[in-house]
Amino acid sequence: MQIIKQVINSWTAQNKAVIAFFDKYDENTYLKEVAAGRNRAVYLFGHLIATNDGMLPLFGLGEKLFPQLESIFITAPDKSTTDLPSLIELKKYWETLNATLTNHFDKMSAEVWLSRHNNVSKEDFSLDPLRNKLNVLVGRTIHQSYHLGQLNLLTAG
Amino acid sequence: MQIIKQVINSWTAQNKAVIAFFDKYDENTYLKEVAAGRNRAVYLFGHLIATNDGMLPLFGLGEKLFPQLESIFITAPDKSTTDLPSLIELKKYWETLNATLTNHFDKMSAEVWLSRHNNVSKEDFSLDPLRNKLNVLVGRTIHQSYHLGQLNLLTAG
Repeated sequence: MQIIKQVINSWTAQNKAVIAFFDKYDENTYLKEVAAGRNRAVYLFGHLIATNDGMLPLFGLGEKLFPQLESIFITAPDKSTTDLPSLIELKKYWETLNATLTNHFDKMSAEVWLSRHNNVSKEDFSLDPLRNKLNVLVGRTIHQSYHLGQLNLLTAG
Repeated sequence: MQIIKQVINSWTAQNKAVIAFFDKYDENTYLKEVAAGRNRAVYLFGHLIATNDGMLPLFGLGEKLFPQLESIFITAPDKSTTDLPSLIELKKYWETLNATLTNHFDKMSAEVWLSRHNNVSKEDFSLDPLRNKLNVLVGRTIHQSYHLGQLNLLTAG
């Protein structure tokens, strides 16, 4: 259980780094691309929220809190719509989602963490028991860091 | 032990993603900056090698294999020297280092993974036993992903 705690801590640390980044500059800065021709910071924020939100159904913890984000921030690339939620709205979503996930994660036993997630069949899971919920959380932590590296290329002003 | 195996797998998967990236384009492409005014891809490659090499002494597994990389790729920022190792040399370092680390990792028991690393004192470790070797490996995995996100902004040609 200690190791699971460590993995959850790494996830939490990435969450803190993400929100620290989005609290650093004035709101308009996040409307800029992280590099020429690439995603805007605000899009990557929504992308992280929409992706992490998927852990709720994936872990059998309930429906997504913000299913409307998937089409904007996962299915569609950046700049395909002008109608993005504002940074303030996204921050609220982020906070609500992380509080919800943390609340669930704190209650999950080691057995539950090591059980299959809902994107793998019972048959496939019996062949590869590493395809469990904990593995998804590690993957999501790595995914956050991937985009945080990109976000930190943003130049302020 | 299964969870440790999962963490090592995540590390290995990041290694594969990094080398796949550096096998994708012709050598000159990696001399470009990943974004305007930012680190060059070749610098980030050396930076990952130098950082990961530090796990050997940190875990009490021996001296660094390539101590000469630290001053070039960790202490100094990019573009402070023109005398970087070539991409071909860096690929050899990468391969040798990962073979060495993997060989050690495969032999380490759960007890060893959960023991303190050499940058934390016995006193501090007794206060926070999560500061162990496994935690360093998770951190290094996240660190690789952070820079991989930046590397994937590189435009070829």
